[in-house]
Amino acid sequence: MWRYEPPLREMQFVIEDLLGAPAQWAQVPGFAGLDAATARSVLAEAGRFAAEVLAPTNADGDRHGCSWDEGRVATPPGFREAYRAYCDGGWPALACDPDWGGQGLPLLLHVALTEMLNSANHAWNMYAGLTHGAYETLRAHATADLQQRYLPKIVSGEWLATMCLTESHAGTDLGLLRTRADPVGGEPRSGSEVRVSGTKIFISGGEHDLTDNIVHLVLARLPDGPPGSKGLSLVLVPKVLTDGTHNRVHCDGIEKKMGLAGSATCVLRFDAATGWLVGEPHRGLPAMFVMMNAARLLVGMQGLGHLEMASQNARRYAHERMQSRAPQRPPGQAPRRADPIALHPAVRRALWTLQALAEGQRVIAYRTAQLLDEAEHHPDAAQRARAHELVALLTPVLKAFCTETGHLGADAALQVWGGHGYVREYGIEQSVRDSRVAMIYEGTNEIQAIDLLLRKVLDGGGQRLALLMDELEDEAARCDADPAVAEFGRALREHADALAAATVELETGREADPEWPYRVADDYLRATGLLLMGWAWARTARVAAPRAGDAWYAARLDAARFGLRWLLPEIDWRLQRVQAADAPLPWGPA
Amino acid sequence: MWRYEPPLREMQFVIEDLLGAPAQWAQVPGFAGLDAATARSVLAEAGRFAAEVLAPTNADGDRHGCSWDEGRVATPPGFREAYRAYCDGGWPALACDPDWGGQGLPLLLHVALTEMLNSANHAWNMYAGLTHGAYETLRAHATADLQQRYLPKIVSGEWLATMCLTESHAGTDLGLLRTRADPVGGEPRSGSEVRVSGTKIFISGGEHDLTDNIVHLVLARLPDGPPGSKGLSLVLVPKVLTDGTHNRVHCDGIEKKMGLAGSATCVLRFDAATGWLVGEPHRGLPAMFVMMNAARLLVGMQGLGHLEMASQNARRYAHERMQSRAPQRPPGQAPRRADPIALHPAVRRALWTLQALAEGQRVIAYRTAQLLDEAEHHPDAAQRARAHELVALLTPVLKAFCTETGHLGADAALQVWGGHGYVREYGIEQSVRDSRVAMIYEGTNEIQAIDLLLRKVLDGGGQRLALLMDELEDEAARCDADPAVAEFGRALREHADALAAATVELETGREADPEWPYRVADDYLRATGLLLMGWAWARTARVAAPRAGDAWYAARLDAARFGLRWLLPEIDWRLQRVQAADAPLPWGPA
Repeated sequence: MWRYEPPLREMQFVIEDLLGAPAQWAQVPGFAGLDAATARSVLAEAGRFAAEVLAPTNADGDRHGCSWDEGRVATPPGFREAYRAYCDGGWPALACDPDWGGQGLPLLLHVALTEMLNSANHAWNMYAGLTHGAYETLRAHATADLQQRYLPKIVSGEWLATMCLTESHAGTDLGLLRTRADPVGGEPRSGSEVRVSGTKIFISGGEHDLTDNIVHLVLARLPDGPPGSKGLSLVLVPKVLTDGTHNRVHCDGIEKKMGLAGSATCVLRFDAATGWLVGEPHRGLPAMFVMMNAARLLVGMQGLGHLEMASQNARRYAHERMQSRAPQRPPGQAPRRADPIALHPAVRRALWTLQALAEGQRVIAYRTAQLLDEAEHHPDAAQRARAHELVALLTPVLKAFCTETGHLGADAALQVWGGHGYVREYGIEQSVRDSRVAMIYEGTNEIQAIDLLLRKVLDGGGQRLALLMDELEDEAARCDADPAVAEFGRALREHADALAAATVELETGREADPEWPYRVADDYLRATGLLLMGWAWARTARVAAPRAGDAWYAARLDAARFGLRWLLPEIDWRLQRVQAADAPLPWGPA
Repeated sequence: MWRYEPPLREMQFVIEDLLGAPAQWAQVPGFAGLDAATARSVLAEAGRFAAEVLAPTNADGDRHGCSWDEGRVATPPGFREAYRAYCDGGWPALACDPDWGGQGLPLLLHVALTEMLNSANHAWNMYAGLTHGAYETLRAHATADLQQRYLPKIVSGEWLATMCLTESHAGTDLGLLRTRADPVGGEPRSGSEVRVSGTKIFISGGEHDLTDNIVHLVLARLPDGPPGSKGLSLVLVPKVLTDGTHNRVHCDGIEKKMGLAGSATCVLRFDAATGWLVGEPHRGLPAMFVMMNAARLLVGMQGLGHLEMASQNARRYAHERMQSRAPQRPPGQAPRRADPIALHPAVRRALWTLQALAEGQRVIAYRTAQLLDEAEHHPDAAQRARAHELVALLTPVLKAFCTETGHLGADAALQVWGGHGYVREYGIEQSVRDSRVAMIYEGTNEIQAIDLLLRKVLDGGGQRLALLMDELEDEAARCDADPAVAEFGRALREHADALAAATVELETGREADPEWPYRVADDYLRATGLLLMGWAWARTARVAAPRAGDAWYAARLDAARFGLRWLLPEIDWRLQRVQAADAPLPWGPA
């Protein structure tokens, strides 16, 4: 049946063998005390929490959902208890600064934790997962006074936080926001008190019973704020004020959704609610964008969490379910009346696809987290700058590619269960429903594609892409040196060259046809994501090949080779679409 | 908001202009009285029923679902009334023989009706949609006595029918069935009374409150039936016996599913229930297969129904929703603060993709229905045989390609609504959930792919494929003659040649590697489906181009050209996978 086994060995393989993270920690002052053994035991403990405490609440959470009654929201059975255990374990504070009560561990470990929480219960993690973003925003922008009042409680998990952006007429286009922030007293500046009025929708965790207080970070417009997104300010609005009175924030309802029933998606009405500016007036959007890279990576981890869960459960089911004779059997296995469906080629291919993508995405996601740690902590400024640029490039790809693959992967995995997959008690259909929204929030995947191609690649004159190409070429060159994995190097270089060539065409062609990159951005992102998979599979193969006498490493090599031969060629098709400059996209259909 | 507008003009375009069906009806004795105007008015009436009576019950059906109480099942509010109106309109009998009370109209019109019913309310049509298959099975195999007792009531809609195949351990592999049929009296033969014992699962409409009686067609094994699928017999087991007593058939529960909440998916326990053999002993599977072609085509129409619904609703929403400025606007349109998202390239491309696929699939599906009519009614035996072979080839493609595209199309369309798409009240998420199961039942899509490649193409020595290639070449040659659409002819021929070449490689290579076609059957089917789209777009373009001065025809040409340039090249990628004979597919992952 549906259950979670934390992929601890796979994680360790990525963190230690593929990324060499422990050696890097030793060079960073803040992480110097951290070694591989400690990291392993942190993740093992996190895996226990995810598998034993959190995962058992997932199906119930879907069945019961949240309930709303006169502005109060009750979370599903078990969610409170799991949240208490989570705080008792110190997990909210994992990657927070010790100055604020955090454990000061690398974001890399926080990302691995997040993968596991999302595998176990994505809906539950919609509450807990926002903490890190709120922490980073306040740490970067709030006044010392606001930090003192709010950061310790957020880091400890005593209070949860939200991001209040969307209004019914303003989703992608935040410039259309109408929520007002009226100053109390004189000229507003960072930390000034304001009164917030307006209605926000789609606020995850906007109201719940997990914590006594909720810290809302609200985008609103000061009276003198210019129209558009440049006139927005960020305001901290707590549910409960310091004196214990309830602020004028009302939850007017929760959405009935396709999935994530355990996550309360709230309509929040601010009725001249008391708040304080976080950062300077009209600088709200840049303040929120500070935390975007980490937040988008964490949303990508929702995709990986679902993909891993779908992969391991489909594999188990396919080995148990006996149906029809397979056209072939492993050597030495006698024919039976019916074989495990895992032997049937269509199922086998589905399982390898899930496995290769989950393993490849873990490499890329953890590598990005490692770069985020470098960008923050590396002693060398040039290294920090380089890491920052690479993260900026990789983030939209991870967000969009992992969430799409997570959802479509779960959807494809459902097929392994046949008719049972469509029935709730088998679990996979919940994954399909829960995973869908991650392609939408935190910037739709289409917005990520435009961010990647227009802003991160073309607008930078291709310099960020060049940094990535260096990383890929470095890996290709290492593969060249070992005949056992030379084909990985060749394929990686060939596809990287193809992407680079397509980029040059776009760069040149967009002067005459400025819309062209917009028309093909989704394919460009998909090709980039697959190319990153190629990089991950190459590195995996190179490290696993010398140990392929061991069945565990042989399986890594098998997955990497499957990805190389079956999945990577999709890049050609995607780039063919990217390069079809004259493919018509008329104005209709009306 | 979510609503249904029957695409009557598009249907008429396909039936009259692309397929020339009315001219063909004139040559068939049974249809000689039918002209284009009558067909149009039949479909207009069907469209009114679908849009005005049935569609309004869809969202409620999902919300309420079915309820089970002590073996009795209540369908959602409005389902009974809609079913009564459906019967009063004579719709169950549309394509049934007048000898049994039917209207004797072409299956082509029944397929068009089915598309509309599925767009309006797929769950509801899970009850009504099984009638035609049961009718065909009984007409072909039941004794005259059974026919007299059951066919008129089925044709009138007074009684509904089911297909009882699956057991918990036997889905795809029907040979594993354990349900017994014990003869009453002497040597069993067609029409003999038997007692049926066993438990069936996933029985759509196994119990409900729409009709007083339900006619179950049950696959079971006689005591002397050989093991495996060759030992199965088909038994008619009514819920209520002729004397009015309740037969020993018990509904032990209904499934909680991802979607289709309004359709009761039943566990049916037969406890020495009274039944009669339909067809000869041990010949149950071939008897059921008689109706498979039509049934699978009708399941394909579930895909088209969802795709059409997603397409037209996404289009409407995208024209209403204003968000951000588009990079370009139609000529003469002044810049605004925010444009309809229909102008944004990513959305525009999504809308055209839905539109081109829905229009292309309608052509192929209706063409297949036309061939089914030919196979049944054409005065020339050679023509009938040819049509039969083509239908055999096209059917698995239609079932798998349309259901996959219907589900993934609805899933992609959801993105157009952004966060609203994830909320139940907007309707699209129900389509995503409802459409998913059609990829599984009536033979999983993987089984369809094996049926296509192994049985229909390779085992026939390629003769059926040659018939299809003739049809494609005929269209390509017609396109050659008109410079305005010559590019369609070229692309169609080029991709057809590529599929033919890949087929030859498989034919040759499978001797040394018998598993190869099994590994790539899914890609082969997808490539074939896209090639059929190419055929549909070519014919559409050829007929629409001369009238492109009219905006309506210009839109058809635009959709066809979009398909040609943006969607058809996927064939290259799919065939690359088909032809990668040496791509590894190891036995794990364990």
